[in-house]
Amino acid sequence: MRTRLHFHKDLSKLRTLAAPATSIVLYDRKLLTASPEFQRWIKKYPHAFSLKAGETLKSLSSFSKQAERIHRAVGENVTRTWTVVAVGGGSVGDFAGFFASVYRRGLRLVHIPSTWLAAIDSSHGGKTALNLRGAKNQIGTFYPSADTVLVKSLLMSLPKSNIEDGIGEIAKIALIDGHGWARKLKRPSVSVSSRTSQNHIECEWLWKNLKPAISSKNRIVNRDPRETRGYRQILNLGHTFGHVLEAAQGLSHGRSVALGLHFALELSESIGTIKKSRADGIRAWLEALKISKTELAKYPGLTVSRAARLLRSDKKRGEGSSVWFIVFKDFGRVERRELRIDRILRVALEKGWVR
Amino acid sequence: MRTRLHFHKDLSKLRTLAAPATSIVLYDRKLLTASPEFQRWIKKYPHAFSLKAGETLKSLSSFSKQAERIHRAVGENVTRTWTVVAVGGGSVGDFAGFFASVYRRGLRLVHIPSTWLAAIDSSHGGKTALNLRGAKNQIGTFYPSADTVLVKSLLMSLPKSNIEDGIGEIAKIALIDGHGWARKLKRPSVSVSSRTSQNHIECEWLWKNLKPAISSKNRIVNRDPRETRGYRQILNLGHTFGHVLEAAQGLSHGRSVALGLHFALELSESIGTIKKSRADGIRAWLEALKISKTELAKYPGLTVSRAARLLRSDKKRGEGSSVWFIVFKDFGRVERRELRIDRILRVALEKGWVR
Repeated sequence: MRTRLHFHKDLSKLRTLAAPATSIVLYDRKLLTASPEFQRWIKKYPHAFSLKAGETLKSLSSFSKQAERIHRAVGENVTRTWTVVAVGGGSVGDFAGFFASVYRRGLRLVHIPSTWLAAIDSSHGGKTALNLRGAKNQIGTFYPSADTVLVKSLLMSLPKSNIEDGIGEIAKIALIDGHGWARKLKRPSVSVSSRTSQNHIECEWLWKNLKPAISSKNRIVNRDPRETRGYRQILNLGHTFGHVLEAAQGLSHGRSVALGLHFALELSESIGTIKKSRADGIRAWLEALKISKTELAKYPGLTVSRAARLLRSDKKRGEGSSVWFIVFKDFGRVERRELRIDRILRVALEKGWVR
Repeated sequence: MRTRLHFHKDLSKLRTLAAPATSIVLYDRKLLTASPEFQRWIKKYPHAFSLKAGETLKSLSSFSKQAERIHRAVGENVTRTWTVVAVGGGSVGDFAGFFASVYRRGLRLVHIPSTWLAAIDSSHGGKTALNLRGAKNQIGTFYPSADTVLVKSLLMSLPKSNIEDGIGEIAKIALIDGHGWARKLKRPSVSVSSRTSQNHIECEWLWKNLKPAISSKNRIVNRDPRETRGYRQILNLGHTFGHVLEAAQGLSHGRSVALGLHFALELSESIGTIKKSRADGIRAWLEALKISKTELAKYPGLTVSRAARLLRSDKKRGEGSSVWFIVFKDFGRVERRELRIDRILRVALEKGWVR
């Protein structure tokens, strides 16, 4: 089943997609204060549950408690024709997606992402994920939403950091895709000094690029929806080392991936899958998106042993002490390679990513 | 994906289906004492976890703890090419099936049922189920096993009560199917007085009827694998009232269903979907299987209000105060009807099922 995509200016037209009387709405409680529009909208839904977003929400033991709470409140009424609506970022989407996939052996799922990261990435492709005692994403299902609704006003209601996260994921998908829209991508120049209008301009820019980015991701997912052929793993570009930075340095997911793209580029050059001139071209393109390696200097140095440990726990582990790593061949051409962890660490040391 | 079926005399040939080094075996701990053969076999599997069978195992909160225990022990080694092997009855199969469907977003699943009930019913058809605070089967997935292996020696190692449970489910599927094997079905007559040899004869009889019963179930499942068209619900024959008896009287599942078949027959006669002569024929057929309504007299009377409450919480609830009930039209012909709970209770009162 393919997800239907919808683009809306605001929340007003959503009642036809999810009838209030037969919908379980699971939403990020931050939205109540961040968006007066959401606050009014959610009042129409009698079966709405607020959630505290974040990794704690994603633990299986917390899931068990929340599922009991939801079932206690609505279980008597729910039939298999009901809908689960997820309104929030990545963790809320993961939680609600998993819930929808297993409650009553599966209810219809509608995603309404409230962060740019979720709008570009996690609300498409059908992966849901929970954590097992801190081990990330060990429990999950493949469960594509019936509908994913991109609501401009909702996406514009969240703060600046959220924009930066979105740009990291857009950059990744553009580098994999390589078509016209991707090559032309550059951060809008902002002449005014007002922070508000800068945010506004960047949100408009993200909104414009949402459609091609999502289509691009969906093309890849549809060739390997359950990740059985390895093909879908190319979406992991920038993530293998990005996850190391995310875990060790406490960077946000989007920023980690942005830096991870720089690392993947340097590694690819070093093992010879991409020529220097092509790599320089991609570096210039990343700089035009204001994705810079100099960001790394802000964070305390990561030790090589810590990085080794984190790489060994990577989910895309290969045989023995290697991992599946997505390398660059050119702009719009990436490839999956099984690389020894030692080799990755050697490049990381040489290029100043670890000490 | 269709489940491959295998019939084996003993456990000796199973290593090719599930390589010990890359299998997580989840088994009913009772088997360690009940079957010396199993005890020897399980020693070859380094990643084996014993479970206490029963409803507690099926609670979501217990699942959360067990999944953490398994992940802690084997998580480092597991890749997506591993297999989960379930050896046990219904609750172990449900637990392990759900685990296989969500751990690492799905590992290959092999069912080796150890009870006749699981061999006939729950190890086929791909339903997995957990409970939410006592509310049965509210959480689950559709996840057919890659292979289901029927092992005669294992099935013969468990006690008599298990045979009675199997006969209830065989009767149900035969009544839905109606082909030659079903019509000819009658309990073997046992001339010797020894209890052991009686068990042996009945086990041989069950083993012989396993293949047609499973084929029959699979034909129905394959027409409606995810229960989206209602068709698969005919497998619920005898279950709607059977579940009421199971919950209120503490009868085993198989015996409850056996009695539920008698109730469904009386209800069908009463609402006129089956003629009296046809119903009498089915009653005689049930008696030949030693499935008798007189069994009911052994249990304390069920009140009509308790029965009403249990029917209202039925998962196959229709709109308002009705449930989907499978009624008889003839031997081998059943039909799904939406019936008012009041109407069902009126028949139950008239015919002495409740007081």
